[in-house]
This record gives sequence, C-alpha cells and structure tokens, in this order.
Amino acid sequence: MSIKYDEGLGKFENWIVKETNFDINYLGKCEAIMSLGNGYLGIRSAFEESYIGETRNLFVSGAFNRFHESEVTELPNAADITNLDIKINGETFNLLTGKTKDYSRELNLKTGELTRSVTWESSKKENFKLVFKRFVSLKDLHLIGMKVEITPLDSDAKISIVSGIDGQQSNSGTQHFYEGEKRFYNKKFIELIQTTTESEIDFIFYTVHNGYGNDIKTVNKTNMKIERRAIFEDTEINLKKNDKFEFEKLSLVYTTRDLEFSIKNSEYTGKYSSEELRTSALKEIRKNSLSKIKYYSEKKYEELFEESKNELEKKWINYAITIESENNFDQLALRFAIYHLIVMTPAHDSRYGIGAKGLSGEGYKGHSFWDTEIFILPFFSYTDPDIARKLLEYRYHTLEGARKKAIENGYEGAMYPWESAWMNDGEVTPIWGPVDIITGTAIKIWSGFIEQHVTSDIAFAIWQYYMITKDEEFMESFGYEVLMDTAKFWASRLEWVVGKNRYEILDVIGPDEYKEHVDNNAFTNYMAKWNIDLAIKYYENLKENKKEIFSKLNEKLGLEKAYSTWKDVLDKIYIPAPNEETLLIPQDDTYLKKEIIDLTKYKNQENVGSIFEDYNLDQVSDIQVSKQADIMTLFYLLENNFSYEVKKANWNYYEPKTLHDSSLSLSTHAILANDISDTELSYSLFKKASQIDLGTNMKTSDHGIHAASFGGLWQSVVCGFGGVRMLEGILRINPRLPKQWKNLEFSIIWHNNKLQIKITHSLLKIIKLSKNQDLIEIEIFDEIYKLHDEINVEIGAN
Amino acid sequence: MSIKYDEGLGKFENWIVKETNFDINYLGKCEAIMSLGNGYLGIRSAFEESYIGETRNLFVSGAFNRFHESEVTELPNAADITNLDIKINGETFNLLTGKTKDYSRELNLKTGELTRSVTWESSKKENFKLVFKRFVSLKDLHLIGMKVEITPLDSDAKISIVSGIDGQQSNSGTQHFYEGEKRFYNKKFIELIQTTTESEIDFIFYTVHNGYGNDIKTVNKTNMKIERRAIFEDTEINLKKNDKFEFEKLSLVYTTRDLEFSIKNSEYTGKYSSEELRTSALKEIRKNSLSKIKYYSEKKYEELFEESKNELEKKWINYAITIESENNFDQLALRFAIYHLIVMTPAHDSRYGIGAKGLSGEGYKGHSFWDTEIFILPFFSYTDPDIARKLLEYRYHTLEGARKKAIENGYEGAMYPWESAWMNDGEVTPIWGPVDIITGTAIKIWSGFIEQHVTSDIAFAIWQYYMITKDEEFMESFGYEVLMDTAKFWASRLEWVVGKNRYEILDVIGPDEYKEHVDNNAFTNYMAKWNIDLAIKYYENLKENKKEIFSKLNEKLGLEKAYSTWKDVLDKIYIPAPNEETLLIPQDDTYLKKEIIDLTKYKNQENVGSIFEDYNLDQVSDIQVSKQADIMTLFYLLENNFSYEVKKANWNYYEPKTLHDSSLSLSTHAILANDISDTELSYSLFKKASQIDLGTNMKTSDHGIHAASFGGLWQSVVCGFGGVRMLEGILRINPRLPKQWKNLEFSIIWHNNKLQIKITHSLLKIIKLSKNQDLIEIEIFDEIYKLHDEINVEIGAN
Repeated sequence: MSIKYDEGLGKFENWIVKETNFDINYLGKCEAIMSLGNGYLGIRSAFEESYIGETRNLFVSGAFNRFHESEVTELPNAADITNLDIKINGETFNLLTGKTKDYSRELNLKTGELTRSVTWESSKKENFKLVFKRFVSLKDLHLIGMKVEITPLDSDAKISIVSGIDGQQSNSGTQHFYEGEKRFYNKKFIELIQTTTESEIDFIFYTVHNGYGNDIKTVNKTNMKIERRAIFEDTEINLKKNDKFEFEKLSLVYTTRDLEFSIKNSEYTGKYSSEELRTSALKEIRKNSLSKIKYYSEKKYEELFEESKNELEKKWINYAITIESENNFDQLALRFAIYHLIVMTPAHDSRYGIGAKGLSGEGYKGHSFWDTEIFILPFFSYTDPDIARKLLEYRYHTLEGARKKAIENGYEGAMYPWESAWMNDGEVTPIWGPVDIITGTAIKIWSGFIEQHVTSDIAFAIWQYYMITKDEEFMESFGYEVLMDTAKFWASRLEWVVGKNRYEILDVIGPDEYKEHVDNNAFTNYMAKWNIDLAIKYYENLKENKKEIFSKLNEKLGLEKAYSTWKDVLDKIYIPAPNEETLLIPQDDTYLKKEIIDLTKYKNQENVGSIFEDYNLDQVSDIQVSKQADIMTLFYLLENNFSYEVKKANWNYYEPKTLHDSSLSLSTHAILANDISDTELSYSLFKKASQIDLGTNMKTSDHGIHAASFGGLWQSVVCGFGGVRMLEGILRINPRLPKQWKNLEFSIIWHNNKLQIKITHSLLKIIKLSKNQDLIEIEIFDEIYKLHDEINVEIGAN
Repeated sequence: MSIKYDEGLGKFENWIVKETNFDINYLGKCEAIMSLGNGYLGIRSAFEESYIGETRNLFVSGAFNRFHESEVTELPNAADITNLDIKINGETFNLLTGKTKDYSRELNLKTGELTRSVTWESSKKENFKLVFKRFVSLKDLHLIGMKVEITPLDSDAKISIVSGIDGQQSNSGTQHFYEGEKRFYNKKFIELIQTTTESEIDFIFYTVHNGYGNDIKTVNKTNMKIERRAIFEDTEINLKKNDKFEFEKLSLVYTTRDLEFSIKNSEYTGKYSSEELRTSALKEIRKNSLSKIKYYSEKKYEELFEESKNELEKKWINYAITIESENNFDQLALRFAIYHLIVMTPAHDSRYGIGAKGLSGEGYKGHSFWDTEIFILPFFSYTDPDIARKLLEYRYHTLEGARKKAIENGYEGAMYPWESAWMNDGEVTPIWGPVDIITGTAIKIWSGFIEQHVTSDIAFAIWQYYMITKDEEFMESFGYEVLMDTAKFWASRLEWVVGKNRYEILDVIGPDEYKEHVDNNAFTNYMAKWNIDLAIKYYENLKENKKEIFSKLNEKLGLEKAYSTWKDVLDKIYIPAPNEETLLIPQDDTYLKKEIIDLTKYKNQENVGSIFEDYNLDQVSDIQVSKQADIMTLFYLLENNFSYEVKKANWNYYEPKTLHDSSLSLSTHAILANDISDTELSYSLFKKASQIDLGTNMKTSDHGIHAASFGGLWQSVVCGFGGVRMLEGILRINPRLPKQWKNLEFSIIWHNNKLQIKITHSLLKIIKLSKNQDLIEIEIFDEIYKLHDEINVEIGAN
C-alpha cells in the first residue's frame, strides 16, 4: 500500500495525509486529494518535476470559458506555476531515474502546507537531499508560495532550475486562452497575461524567484526565456557539499472577473462592456499586482506561509469536530473532508458555486449540481451560515438562466439547470458521454434535459437554510422568489392523465441515473409536491404578514394566478404510496417490474461502473439495479412523511440493488442505516464513504476529488451518528454512536446561537456558547427541551 | 556519444541512421531527424511509449489553421496515432524504469522504415523483448503502418496495449481543432473526425488493430474507450514464455483540403462554400476510407510496408548519388539529406510549399521561406523537374497575396511574403520573437516587413528552373507573369536619392539578419537590378516572338508602362561596387564602419546564437558580425558578375565575421570556399554543414530538421565539389573534389536529358542516358563540349 495516513502519533493529532513511498500509479490520485486552494483558486498537487500521466491544474473559481458552441462552458486550466525543471550536475531530477530514499509527502490539513522530502541518488550515484514546500494563501487569495531546498550530500554540485509561468496548459487538449503577453520587469519579475477566448477574461500572473544560501541571497546567473505561451527564468548556482540552497518562488494570480475589478463594471459579469474599460482595469491590476509582488519578494516563504496558516487555523476552530474512535482514520477522514470543503468553496463571491470536483481536477468542468444543495450545504448552514447564504445567493443569481430554460422547454417559472456554471449560462450539461459498448458511439447524456429534481432540491436547501438560520433578510431578498418560481415550474411541469384523474410527472431521471426516461420517479414527485406545498404556505404567510414583499413578488411573478393553480393541483399530484402489503414504494412506475439479476459481482466491484463492462445503459435500464441512493434520499429529506417500517422495508429491498456507483450514495445510506437502527451497517457504510477519495483505490480521484462526498461524510457524522436534524423547523438531536466511537464532539449554529454538542454512548451534552437570553427548543428522543445554557440528556440503550 | 551512424558494414551500405543507446537528452533531436513522411503527411518519431519532453507531431501538408487574429496561420498538430501505452504484468513499459538492454533504433533511409529493438527488464526483473516498426506509406499517401512484437523471455505474461487516436495534441498549447466526432464501427474500426477552428478543414482518421500470435489472430479481450478528444481500444492478451505477440496498427488520414476532394469545390481552397457541399464531401470520404481501412485490415504490416518500400526505391534510383570518401559518413549525410527532401516535399499538390522544418516539427509553423527557392529548388530542378515545377507553381498561386502585400505597403506588382503559407494568406511572418535581454520583452520580428529579397529570389529560381529544363509551357502559363510582376515591384520599391542622383533601396534586412534597417544591402540591390534586367529581356523577347502571350500579360499587368519605367531606372540603380583598393563590397551602407570585436568565443560556440547571451539585437546590429552568408550568396547566384579576386578579398573579410547562426549559411560558404580554390576549407565547411542535424549536438533539431540545409548540402556536393552550374543558360561543370574523396557520381537532368556524371580527381565522365539526337553544350574548364553519348575530360592538378 502506497498511501499511508498518519496513525495519530500525538504530534500531528491526525492532521496529516501522507504518502510514504513514491508510486507512479498514485500520481493522479495524490494530485487531487492533496490539492491546495482557498476558494478563489485551486491548484492540483502535481509534483514540481514532470511525469507522464500527470495533470497540472490551476483553476480560478467562476472564471468560465466556452471553447466552442459545440461544447459547454468550463473552468479553464490556467497557466502552470508549479513546475520546476531541476538539473543537478547536468542530470534532470526525477524520481523515475536514479534511486529514491527516505521519501515522504505530506499534506498538513491544519496548516494547508504540502511538503515533500526525499534523498535522491542520481544515476552517477551522488546523493542529494531535496525538500519541497508549497501553500496557497488563505490570507491573500491571490498568492501562491513555493520553496525547494537542495543539499548535496556527497560533493559540490552545479544546480540549475528552470521556472516561470507556463501557459501551454489546456483542458485535455482544449485551449481556452489566447497566446498572451509575456514580460520581465527589472530582469526579475515575470508577467504573463492571457485572455480567455470567449468570456474575454484576462488572467494576470506574476512570479518572482529568490535564491538563498548561507542566509544571503545567492544566485550565480539567470537567463530569461520567452517561449510560446510561456516565460521562464533559468537560475544557475554552484553549491558546496552540505550547503543548502533555498529557492523560493512566489506567484500572484488575478483575473478581470475578480469581484473587486468587475464590480466597477455595470454588468457585474467580468466581461467589460468596452475595450477602454478593460484596458483601464488591466492597467490598474498590473500596477497594483506588480507593486505587490515586489513587496512580497522582500519577504521569505515562511513568513507568508505563517500568515496563511493563521487564517486557516481560525477556520479550524469554527469547524472543529472531534471523533474519539478506535480507528484514528475516522478523525482524519472528517478533517480531510472539511479541509477540502474549505479550499474548494468560493466563500468570497456569490456569482458562482462549488464544482462537483471542487478545484482539484477537470472532472465535471467546474459545474455545480444538486451536490451543493443536498450534500454540501447543510455543513455550511449549520457551521458557517454566511457562506451557505452566498451559495444560495448564487442560485438566485442564476434565476435568469433557469427561467430561460423553463421557457425553452415549454414550462413556466424557474427550471434550474442540471449543471450550472456562470450566472446567466443556463443549462451547461454536456450532451455526449463515454462510449456505448453496443453502438460504438458516445452515449447521449439526458440529465440536462430530464433530470429535473434539482429544482426542488434548491428549494429544499433554501427552506432548510432558513429554518436553521432564521435569516429573514435573505428570504425577503432572495429566498421567497426562488421558492415561488420553482413551485411555478413544477405546477407547469405536471401532466394531467385523464384515465387516472391525477397529475403525473412523466419522462424524467430521478437521483438513480441508471433509470432514464421513467415516469413518476418517487423522489421527483414527492419533492415537487413538497415544493408547491411550501410555496402555498409562504404565499399565504407573505400575503398576510409581509404585504410589501408580497406585492412586489406578485407583480414580478404573477403569484395570485400561480397560487390558484397550486391550490388546484396540490392534492391531485400522484405520490407513489407504500404498498399495503410489502410497504414498498415503487422507485418509478416500472422499476419493480424489471428483471432481477445477480448483482454480487458489481456489489463487490473494485471500481465504480463495472456493470457497463457487461451491459450498455439501455440494458441496465431494464434491470432492477440502482446507481445510487434514490428513495433513501427522499426518506432522509422528508423523513417525517415515512414510518420506520416503510423505511426498513424499502431499505431491505433497494439497498442490495444499489451499486453506489455515485459518490453521493454511501453517506445517505449510512444515515438511513442508522435511522433504521443498524448502526453497525451504518458505520461500515461510513467507512466506505470515507474512502471514496482517501482509500487506496488508484484511479478513483484522477479527475478530481468528490466534493459532495465530503459534505455527505460530515452529514453522516453530524446528522447520522450525531442525530442532528431540522424537522419542520424544529431542531431534533437523536444521537446514536457506533460502538467503535467513544466520543463525538462538534458545534452547530442554530438560529444564530452557537451550540457545542458532546456525545458519548451514555450522554448527550449541549452547551449554548452564545451568551444571550435565547431559549432554544430542541427535540431529543421524542421529548422537547428548552436550552438556555446547557442541557444533559442520558442516552439509554436502544 | 549517443547517436551513432552506421559505419558502412557492407550490408546496409550507409543507409542507416542509428541510435545505439537510449539517452533521454536526445529525445527531441531523434524525433526530428528520424521523422517519417511522404510529402502529404509527416510524423515526428516520438517513441510509442511517452516521455516527458517528447513532442508528438502529425502534420498534413498545407492544412493550415489560424488560432486567432493575433497569431499567424500554422500547420496544426493533428491527432496522434503513434502512442501505445503498453503494460506488461501490470507495469507500464518505459525505458526510464527497469533496465534497458541491447537497445537499437534505426531509421533505414532506403526503405523508409523506423525500427527499434530492445530487451527490457521490468522492475520485477522479468525480461521482455520488444521490437517496434513503423512506416508512412509512399504508396498510399494516407496510410501509416505500425507494429510491435512482444516476447516474454522469462515467464508467461499478461500484456495490455491501449492504443487509438488521441486528439488532445496541440501546437505548444495552441489548439487548432474542435472536439470532434468519435466512433467505433463493428467494435473494431476507430474513427475520429476533427475540424480546424478557422480554416474549417475536416481531418478524418481511421485506425484498426490486429493482434497475431502463433500465426493466427489472437486477442483475449478488448475494451473501447471514448474520452475527451480521444478514442482508444484496450487490448489484453495472455502470452506464454517465448511466444511472440505481434500487434499491428494501421491508420488512415484524410482531410477535406485534400486535392481530390477540394478540387470539386469551385474555390479550390478546401473550405467548402456551403454546409451541404462539406457534408457530402465528408460522407464520401468516410465511406471510401472506412472501406479502405477494412481492406487494409485484412493485410499484414509487412505486405503494406513492402509496397511503400518499392515506391521509395524508385525515388532512390532517380536521386542516386555516390560518394567514395575516406569518411563513410559523407555518403550517409547526403542520403540523409535526400531522404528528408523526399519525405517533406508535397510533390502531389502545388497549393502549398515546403516548410522550413519540413513536416518534422512545429518550428516556423510550416511556413515557406526563400529557403525553398535558393537552397532546395536546385535539387529538384536538376533531378526531378516535375516537382520543381509544382513548387514554383505554388508561388504563382500565391501571387494574389503578394500583390496584396505590395499594395498594402504602397508598392506595385508582386511583393512576396517573407513567410508564406496557404495560397492567398499573404504575409504570415509572426510579429514577436524571443526575449530581448535588455528590455525583458519579446523582440519584434522585422523580416515580414523589410526582408524583401525573397521576391527576387523567387524570380531567380524560376529563371534557373527554366534554363535547366527549357520548360516553355511553364513559363507561358506561370513563369513570365511572376518575372514581370516581381520586376514591377522592384521598380516601385526603388527610392530616388536626389543628392546622389541614383536609385537606392533603403531600410531593408538582407540575408544577414543580424543587420536590421540597413540601406543598400548589396545582395538585395544586385538581385533587384538583376530581376528588372531579366524582365526587360523577356519583355522584348515576348513582344517579338510570342505576341499572344505578350498581349495577354500586357493587358493584365500593364507591361508597356512598366517596361518604360524599367528602361528608365535600370542604369540608375545603385549597385555597391568593389572598392578599388581593397576590392571589398560593403554588405550595406554602414557595415564596414561598425565596431569590430573579437568573435572567437562565438565562432567556437556549441549552440547557435550564443552572441545573444551577451548582446541584444540592437547591440549586435552595431558590430561587424554576420549571422549567415550574405555577399557570398550573391557571389554564388550571380557568379559571373564578380572576379576571382573580388570573391577572395571579400571571403577573407566576411568569412571570419560570419557566425553561421543560420543553417542556410555553411553550405553556401562551402561552395564559395571551393570557388576560391580552398577545397580543404570547403570540405571542412561541408562536414560542418552535414552535421547541422546529424551531429551529436543535443538540442539543435528539437523544433524540426533544417530543410534548407539539406538542399544546401546537395548543392555543396553537386554544384560545389561536382562543379555543376547553370550560368547564363549554359551548363558548366568544373569539378574539384576534396582529397578525402576518391569518386563522386550522380545524375542530373538538363534540357530533358538525363546525364550521368562520374568524377574522380583525374577524370570527369559524362554519359547522356537519354537516347535521342540532342546535342548538349557543356562548358568544362573554360572549354565548350558537345555531348552526344559520352564525354571524358581529364582533370589537371589545380
């Protein structure tokens, strides 16, 4: 096994993801899981030296570009600043040549620093110690710091390092930038400015190198090089045996889509309405950032890293979660999940969302899915509501695109895109996917057309956020409008079936994407009805209590007419009920009639999607097999609607048929397993979920980490084992720890009050940290408690 | 030394360029010098497996595209079909891991096959023998054949090979293609169709794999994969110890710019005037090529290779040249030059020219320079006039662009672009070059604006071709028009200098590109005058003898008016004469007044251009230093205009100041050294010229081979040592062999008669191979001979 995790030796307290030997097979995986970022930008952790199969990625959140109208918009892979081409005594430093000794690569989740240490024996049998360090600043979102220390152990050495800004990158061959401008200032400060081809965003890079030896700046000679799309400096030094050379590289990244620049543009889009505006914005960015890189150039790596570390530590205090488990890995896995939630989330800007792979890979093109609302958002709603609000504001900003999509499909209201990118992009789901083994052509992706539940998922997340935070201001500015407009969509989406005398929702994809073109997917129908029902309630409430808001919205959306439709259709919406005998809810109209086959082979698969080696999608569609949690997700979101017995019966039927071929699946099943009292199974599903990225499976993370799974993992701990739920606006906490855990401790923010929650097998302790007079109503094991300072509830054996 | 050349062991007769051990430092060089092609397409010889620093290139001649208006058009790097990702017992085959034994890579110039043989010891200490073979067909210009043979030597083995069509390539990051269509037919035949972004040329690829073992088709399992811009097949087989697995890959490449398809389009440009036309052309190509790949799939590699080899051997019979030298390398170097002239030249089409790097690299973007006319064309005019004619017709097809350039610059007639691409592209010289070490910005490239001598170089090549071939039909259809229109340009380009009462040519770059913005570059002025003088002669001749042609041209170009201008200006053009005392001709008005510095360091440089590590271009401009042959080229082209003494005096002055920082330089100096009787020096310059690509210098050929140097090398043998010249329409042969050579034998075609020429130190033998009654007038050592069947001339000591 190549990847090891710190086993909790005290010193690091489970903060370290560590690779203890170099294995080229884990190249892509480690690039992704060890990626760095700060929500503004993300860098995949490719090595400084190059390897075949590597993927160098630098993404700036929200800076989308579309290569051609036949493709969809995506986050462009910007210039690389991480590559260092190091030659020692004429030989290129590379771990595939010579010998690698004492190798260690560590991502420190607490500090956000990536380090690597290695003793390298060159093919001439000379030994060199190399230490690499790297961080993406949490203090200055534009700053990236790198450092390499080289010490010759056997004899004097001649070192050369070619380093600079390399704009020859692409997204798997798709080039989003024009050639660009390249320049050296004072023969030292390196500039690259490249513009995206369609969105016309300028990316501005600055880099500076400093070499230190014996505590003074020391470099023999540098050569400047300008190449196609790239600008480099070649630094040469002669080094005595045992003398350490410290080479520091600081880089700054800006774009003209950055909020501080594009805010000056009336359109707020980052696309300048005139060439003059753009030129003057660029001029200002260049001036400021050139003086900033000069300022940083006088500082050392350690100082700048310290500043970033301090920022990150503040976040860790807020997000702290402690798991005392017999498996130290559990604690690490949670921190790993939260680390990635921190570095991937654009907390600084509400004009774009979280990508399904964060900023750690090209997978899913930086697009946002229901992953954010259903899987990630609860983490922020409960622990950092400002960020949750920004993420929901993003959906408000995309209303224009959602309305356009509704109109184009012949519906009303807001039909949210399955995949979402820049504010007014609308639907950006690609049309073509991987190969169909029967026809030999690419599979058509139907999600952008008929996977429609995302619209109610967003409504649900808004309501959930509102219930947790009581952020009335958000609702008035943004939330109510989305709730009304999504309900309008669903009302128009319903189809009246004459013979059955009811409204149905035909031809959709539910959460289980192995079933395309199904009628009355239970999840979709329940959530659509819930969405309309909620809109009715808020309509009545606003009309009664907030007349100004009501009349504004009514004018904008035609609410009165919509309301009468809602009232009319609500009870006529077909909601698949549990069968009276079996208690089974059909996942859709035909699922239960399909062929049942032996799925053992696929349940035990090493890689997801192995069923497609034997069947194509059409064939899979005809089998009782599910990609991921479908009805279980419904049970989780609307849990009060279903009895324990119904949950259990459906679990027993659907779980064995669910392959968990989506990273969204395991954490939901982990929670549901606990809900039906199988904590042992729940823990084993939690373990599996925690290994989606951190496991030793080689290739699973090549295209990037699984953002939703991190939010899911947090939920499986806090909402699953911790038992925290918001139900009909009430906070309920029914903890149920697995036997491997001794103690679970975390905090949430409920109605603006910070609550510290400590759980053992025998006690639930809740401390209100906010010093105020608020009384918090909490339901615990079917009893209502009023929390003022602290409550302690004994947990019986159950 | 890593690269070895076959030392003439009899069997291969100096046909082999061989690499005898794997050295990653020669990656780029060997990719270029061992590149394969057929004039329609060229493939850089990157290894089947991947290495950092490799460049995979597949170019189709003439299929230019322009990424953006800020860049110039270039040959796009099309999809790669050479990469094979081979895994043996789970380990990726790569020469940087494990151990490499018995390595040998050979380019056979005679057969056009590239082979590699290696015994690879995996890191598990298991040995495997691998043999790779590859050819680009000379029989079917669209066909590429590849083969790998794998034999496990120590135990049974599991082999997997991922292979297909990979369109993720780019030109150093610049992407010229849209995503494209990908498809498998019959789960076997792989298709990729990609369209260029601006020129809208469709590239159509087909690939098929066949596996053979124990003489039957044998493959365990294949998986199909469709990725972004790429389509692959994963072939798996289990192999017994000592059993050989033969894996063959055949590929076809077409474009909608191919003559046979675009000829149907009225515009002849390959850009279809309507979507209907394009769709129907594509449909036809797909149908034909799919049935063709199916047909080829039934054949074996060896059979298809044999057909290609036979075609190439026909060419070798025509281009045969024998050097009996004490250095076997001399023979190899000539064959190497001719091999590349064969594989790079688009003999099948006159709508584009030869790129300065052939089809072997991205350098110079596939553009044509004066390199073709002055350095390469004599080879074809003397040995394969049909191809020479096609290359000159290309310049005729570009007249529209040349006229446009003249008008844009305020001149008349045809002002040929310094760099030329597709027919009507006009000037395509990029504006920005490498870094200026003083300013830190990119250097402005002035050649496209003021390096104007290319216009008379083209006129010269036409005249030379005409004199050698007597191809009157070509002149009437194309040649006269170019000669008249280039003369018109020069007449309009002259500037009357009042004080001096003469016409001058101010602000140009001559052949020596280290001197920008000079006045009265001797080469430029002499050649301009020569161009006008020639036009006058042909004007008078046409008017007198070819009235119909004359009146057509007169009407089109306004010749009568032009003629009176030419007559008026001719004797007033300033031609820098040799100084009466020193006999020196000033290279330009200021050269001889510039600073003289010690150039020893740069004359002894290992890499070209080392002077720029110490000076920027402005500073170099102020020193008496030349990049390349300038006045020497003039002496070579218009040799009758200058006395032996003038040549010698100028040689002694300029040669020590010439750094040969251009690959066009050495061969010209080699010829001139012989002209001034220094055969020893001439041979040493020839040796240097023959090592421009074949030498052991690591990096010189990274961006591609040096096309002009091959033509130059041929000239330095045939026109230098062989003494063959066309002077005022007369064939003159004054051979002068270096002492290292015993015998030189070659053939030329003069006025449609094939002459076999054999030269020793004591005898010149000329045999007319064409059996006809023609009498050929030849001047040999100042005497005129009439050749009917054969002449033998004794060579005295000189």
